[in-house]
Parts: sequence; C-alpha cells; structure tokens
Amino acid sequence: MKYLITGSAGFIGSNLTDKLLSLGHEVVGYDNFSTGIHQFLEHAKKSPHFTLIENDLLNHDVLTQAMKDIDFVFHLAANADVRFGTHHPHRDLEQNTVVTFNVLEAMRANNVKQIAFASTGSIYGEATIIPTPEHAPFPIQTSLYGASKLAAEGLIQAYCEGFGFQAYIFRFVSILGERYTHGHVFDFFKQLLMNPGQLNVLGNGKQRKSYLYIQDCLDAMLYAINKSQDRINIFNLGTDEYCEVNDSIKWICDHLNVIPIKTYTGGDKGWIGDNPFIFLDCSRIRNLGWKPKLSIREGVLQTIQYLQQNPWLLESRA
Amino acid sequence: MKYLITGSAGFIGSNLTDKLLSLGHEVVGYDNFSTGIHQFLEHAKKSPHFTLIENDLLNHDVLTQAMKDIDFVFHLAANADVRFGTHHPHRDLEQNTVVTFNVLEAMRANNVKQIAFASTGSIYGEATIIPTPEHAPFPIQTSLYGASKLAAEGLIQAYCEGFGFQAYIFRFVSILGERYTHGHVFDFFKQLLMNPGQLNVLGNGKQRKSYLYIQDCLDAMLYAINKSQDRINIFNLGTDEYCEVNDSIKWICDHLNVIPIKTYTGGDKGWIGDNPFIFLDCSRIRNLGWKPKLSIREGVLQTIQYLQQNPWLLESRA
Repeated sequence: MKYLITGSAGFIGSNLTDKLLSLGHEVVGYDNFSTGIHQFLEHAKKSPHFTLIENDLLNHDVLTQAMKDIDFVFHLAANADVRFGTHHPHRDLEQNTVVTFNVLEAMRANNVKQIAFASTGSIYGEATIIPTPEHAPFPIQTSLYGASKLAAEGLIQAYCEGFGFQAYIFRFVSILGERYTHGHVFDFFKQLLMNPGQLNVLGNGKQRKSYLYIQDCLDAMLYAINKSQDRINIFNLGTDEYCEVNDSIKWICDHLNVIPIKTYTGGDKGWIGDNPFIFLDCSRIRNLGWKPKLSIREGVLQTIQYLQQNPWLLESRA
Repeated sequence: MKYLITGSAGFIGSNLTDKLLSLGHEVVGYDNFSTGIHQFLEHAKKSPHFTLIENDLLNHDVLTQAMKDIDFVFHLAANADVRFGTHHPHRDLEQNTVVTFNVLEAMRANNVKQIAFASTGSIYGEATIIPTPEHAPFPIQTSLYGASKLAAEGLIQAYCEGFGFQAYIFRFVSILGERYTHGHVFDFFKQLLMNPGQLNVLGNGKQRKSYLYIQDCLDAMLYAINKSQDRINIFNLGTDEYCEVNDSIKWICDHLNVIPIKTYTGGDKGWIGDNPFIFLDCSRIRNLGWKPKLSIREGVLQTIQYLQQNPWLLESRA
C-alpha cells in the first residue's frame, strides 16, 4: 500500500511513518515543518520506500501532485496549539478546517478515496456524559481547536456521502510517548530538569486527563482500519482510565526522585477553553478486539524516559 | 437597537429587515446580491432607519467598518444552494464557514457580542431520533451544506466561550412564505404555471418535509432572543407536523385547480445528500411559550398566493 501522511514530521505522524515502513508499505510524508522536526524522520529517510515533501498543505498544486497513486491518506497535520487558540483565531480555521478541505479536494482530483483523520476528544466540549461515547449528545464547542476539528469531521463525512469516500475518524485523548513535545508531561519534565525544587502548575492540579501511549494509538488506528469497513467509521481512542494532573506530577517526581514545591495558578481550568475532564468511552473499538498495552502511568514514564534520553528535544522546544 | 443583518436582501433577511424596522429599530443590511433581490428591500429603503451595504462578507475592511456601533447581528447570509453542493464544494466552505468566521472577527474588532445565526435541520444528517431534539446524538453530516453550517455553529460557540459572545443558533426546517424563491413549492408552482398538465417531481414524492411559515419563523427568533438568556441558546424551529412532497403537490394543485400528470424521477431521495426526512422536535422553544400561527398547509398556500401576486419573481429566477 502507498500511504500519504500529512504532518509526517510531527509526534504522531513520524511514529506512524516508521510503523508503516516497518510493515513494508510505501509512505509519502508531507510536512511544512512549522512544528514538525527533521530528526523525527531520520530513520524514515534511510528507507527507499519513504518520500518527503516539505511543503504547505495550503499549496494546492504541490498537494494535488503529491496525492498521485496514493492508496490511503492519514491526515494528521494540524495546528495543535490548543491553548492559545484565542490569540490567533484564524490559525485553527486555516490549518485545521481549510487544510482538511484541501486534502479532500486533492484526493478527489486523484480518485483517492480512503482517509483516516486525527480528531480529538475536545470535540465533545464539556461533555454531559462521562465517559463520553461517540454518539454522545450533540456537543457545544468550547475551543477554536475543537470547533475546527468538528468542521473537518463534517467535511470528511460529507465527502463520504457526496463522493463515495471511506473515512476513519479517530477522536483521541492526549497521546504521549516517544517524540512527545508538548502538554503537561513535557512541560513538567522540562521545569523539573531546570529546577527540581519548584514546579508551576497551570490550573489546580485536579484537572482529570486521559492519555494514550503512542504505540497503542498507532495499533488502534491500524486495527480499526483493518476490522471496520463502514463508509464512515468513528472511534474514540483512549484507555479505560484517567488520572489527575497531580497524579502525573507524582509519577514524574517519583521517577526523577525530586520533591518540588508546587505552585498552582490560573483557577480551576488551565486556560479559557481548556476542558477540565476528557474521558472517552472507548467500548466501540474495545468491542472490535483492540486494547491498549500500556496504562496511563506506564505511558507517562515511557515519555519521561524518552525525554531523558533525548535532551536535544527539550532545547529545540525552548 | 441597531441591528446588522447579513443576507438582508434574501428571503428571510428582507422579511426580518421589514419586521425590525416596523418595531422601531435601526437596521444595517449587508448583502452581495449574489442571490439577494433588490425589490425585496423596496419598502426598507424608504425608511430613514435603514442603511444598505452592497458588498461581500469576504471583504474584511468593509465588513469591519459596517459593524461599528451595532448592538446585535443576525447572520443569515449563506450559500443556500444545498442541492448542488457537490458541484462546487468550495462554495459552502467559503460562503458559510469562512464568512461566519469573518462576521465573528468583525464583531470582535468592534466589541459587538450578540449574534443570531440561521442554521439548519440538515445539520442532524440522517437523524436517528425523529422528531429530532437539539441534544440529539452527535450527528454524521450528509451534505456539504450541513457540514458548513455545523462548522459555523462550532465557531460561534467557541467565540462565546473564548470571547464572551452570546449566541442564538436557530436550526430551521425549510421556511416558506412571502418572497420564497426556491425549493419544492416554488418549483412546482413555476412548472404548473408553464404547463398545468405536467409536473416533474424529483424523488418519489414520499420524501417527508417540514416547513415553517416565514412570519412564524421571525416571531420565533425574536421571541427566543427575548426570553432565553443563556450564553449559547440553540433552538430548533419548525411546526409540530410534517408533510410529504405529494401532500404539498395536492394542496398546490387543488388551489390552482389543475390535475397534472406527475412524473417521478431520481429514486427515493431527491439528490445525493438530500435528507429524506427532517422533522424537528421543537419542544424547547414551545416550552418558552412560542407556537406557530400557520400550519404547513396554510404556509404553502400563503406562498402560492404570494407567487401568484408577484409573477416577476418567477421570471427573475428563470
């Protein structure tokens, strides 16, 4: 199979690239390197089955050309700067919604009809049912990020109905593991490395969060694509547990053997539009037969160990 | 109050303009006349309280200027060409989603914080619960039109959370009445005027449809805005009944006293992405105290009488 992966130099994209190459597939990586990292593709670049296109998804011509002879698209590229959405509202619209439209149009121009899309549990807003299933009540959006992903999902679904596409929409909890470069765990580790005696925590530390380990996330996607053959296949992806931000702090501190003074700032929520509790009902994919191998705690520790082994990453994200 | 109405020269927009002027308000109408009709604003143009801006909502500068000193925005402008969405996928994205973003940004630049938005029952896709309430299960989009309106709703909701806006989102069934210029009733009347002996019907005639009379629609919106004061107020708007396309054909034929030969084409559905049955649960607004004055049949006949009195409209939409 020949796959095109948008955002192939990102956290999830680069891991997926390596995975698909290891399974013997051809991969065309597409990334504008606005947040992607060249080192993540070091391994892939050694493969004769990997092609990298360093360009922007807003560039129709290059994108349309790139889609030639592709069998399946993983659309992972996104503005993942959830926190500062209100600082630049245009970015989510352009990078997440408009870019998804461009990907769909480039597919249509090349008769490529299968797409997997990285959506988010944020799409459920402040869910009224927890754990939240895929068929939860019609959600109210609380962030520009969630709104832009909802818009992208809707576009993809309309292309399935209107143009005979087949889609896999994955609503992720936060993913962590090797090459993880943002969010709480990354931030805490970085702070503690600089000053093991002090930790600043945005919010009250009681925000409950769900995490899924990257390799479990990749396995889940490939498993669902293999097993589920509806026109539109929507899956929550997460573990069947959650933790508090304070739990992950404890795991990290225990692992690093540090006892910092913790300073909590910013009230109950981390930021405007931050969701205090995302916990997804993943029984749909569980019922297909998939289950995660790592617990949240194990995923957090795997992440910390990776960051310890790759200090250059902390500096590149200064 | 000073209102800005986007799409003010359209079917709903021009009726709302007249209504708000009659209530003593100031109205700024904004329309690019891509489908708007100058004659619809003939009455409004005589009012000293009406200003018309003939421009496109993609023009940021003019839009931002127009928003100055506005108290409340009715965002009604849209690509309403639901049927041919797949012929030009870009149009729904640009005219419905991006334009809504532009309206929100122009509001933000002028500290205007109240918006009412014309959404659609199409947003529920092929609903699993009928009649469909506002909190129906998370829908799957079946048309580019629905997807673009869903995207716009999400943006508006995110602006409420992120920037302190207050929003009224109205999910309409099909609206008809004075100045109605598309859809089944318009099409049937026009066909029968040209040839009373023959009627072509897209679909099998058994598609069930809900309609609401325009004046009831306007009353409902103003009623909800007056009575409901949440941050985000979402209301289905329709009657508590539905009809089949064949019912409306019968009412029209009886009224015109014609007995055409009917030819059904195109299978069960009218077109790809057409929804065979939209029937909204309107108990939320009913519980506020509003109810429609006209039945679907009365609304259809009101529309036909208007078209009979305004034959120029049929010619302008040749």
